[in-house]
Amino acid sequence: MTFSRASRKVIAIGRNYVEHVKELHNAVPATPFFFLKPPSSIIPPKSTLRIPQGVHAHHEVELALIIGHRATDIPNDMDAAMSVIAGYAVAIDVTARNVQDDAKKKGLPWTIAKGFDTFLPMSSFIPKSSIPDPHNAVLKLTVNHESRQNDSTNLMIFKIPKLLSYISGIMSLEPDDVVLTGTPKGVGRIVHGDVMRASIHVDGDNIKQGNIEIM
Amino acid sequence: MTFSRASRKVIAIGRNYVEHVKELHNAVPATPFFFLKPPSSIIPPKSTLRIPQGVHAHHEVELALIIGHRATDIPNDMDAAMSVIAGYAVAIDVTARNVQDDAKKKGLPWTIAKGFDTFLPMSSFIPKSSIPDPHNAVLKLTVNHESRQNDSTNLMIFKIPKLLSYISGIMSLEPDDVVLTGTPKGVGRIVHGDVMRASIHVDGDNIKQGNIEIM
Ligand SMILES: [Mg+2]
Ligand SMILES: [Mg+2]
Ligand SMILES: [Mg+2]
Repeated sequence: MTFSRASRKVIAIGRNYVEHVKELHNAVPATPFFFLKPPSSIIPPKSTLRIPQGVHAHHEVELALIIGHRATDIPNDMDAAMSVIAGYAVAIDVTARNVQDDAKKKGLPWTIAKGFDTFLPMSSFIPKSSIPDPHNAVLKLTVNHESRQNDSTNLMIFKIPKLLSYISGIMSLEPDDVVLTGTPKGVGRIVHGDVMRASIHVDGDNIKQGNIEIM
Repeated sequence: MTFSRASRKVIAIGRNYVEHVKELHNAVPATPFFFLKPPSSIIPPKSTLRIPQGVHAHHEVELALIIGHRATDIPNDMDAAMSVIAGYAVAIDVTARNVQDDAKKKGLPWTIAKGFDTFLPMSSFIPKSSIPDPHNAVLKLTVNHESRQNDSTNLMIFKIPKLLSYISGIMSLEPDDVVLTGTPKGVGRIVHGDVMRASIHVDGDNIKQGNIEIM
């Protein structure tokens, strides 16, 4: 997990799967939007989530892109996008949903809702070659062995070239930066004592570096 | 400026000076709130601001705290706060005010409004000994030699121990992290071609490491 110690920013895309947008009663965005999670929220693939008192924590499993080199104004095409991606990871964008709902109502930043310590479990680094097409992989998340999220990355509203082009037109990407590409439907609450597992599958095969197990 | 290359997060406090809260017609917060700026937005003390087309950029001069070591749940007292502070800097939290106003209306994150490349000019590192009392220094900002901001840090609503205690109860602070403590009144627009200077003064003396000059 060297990337997680070296990462200077974690950019997370919001509302990038239609069915997830609907389940939270949000509007499908006309352009991508994103927020930052602090690198201090990252925890290793096998670790413990700490949910602060009064917080309703929700799981959001996501495909993470690990950036390989500095890039600004990346063109919106697949070759350009692939050349800045060093590899992948699976991530759980844990969200304090009640804190976020309150921030949204007040027009305040999402930072606290998204940024608590331990709120970003990340898998090991997945080599680029293990996921030949990042728009054709299946993300899964279970809670206590029950399926909660299970969808293909081909359901992304804005595809990876568009995301990287849009982000890098605003803020330069740097080596080891992490881009979370949004969560499919099925987000839900997790409480103390739950066991949460996340994984990624290509052509039905589990990519072992992508496994996460959180108590 | 080693801290600016090593920094993994920049935490910025909002609405921490009463007169600034009033000038933007906001409510005085009951607890501190904060957002993240990406480290990629930091530029050196003498450099050039790039304002994207359509963006109304505003200056916000702020006292920056440079964190010296990892800390979680810092007690709310001056000794504890001072022991995690390695030194200071002057910073200009450049803000795309029209983008921010739009995000606030829609309940969206502030990230884009705050995160463009070049939107965080920072001074050199100021040794702790140069600012014996961080609540008793004067921040100044001029645009084209005209005074725009000029106020004492003793006007902060939430003082530094409260800020560090509150933040570190949510997210751990790490070495070289930067905490921007909020801006006094006088924020305003800057356009291409303006020369912006920021500085900090203790007992009437300019602290030379704190000088910023942006074209
Ligand atoms: Mg934010
Ligand atoms: Mg998410
Ligand atoms: Mg500010």
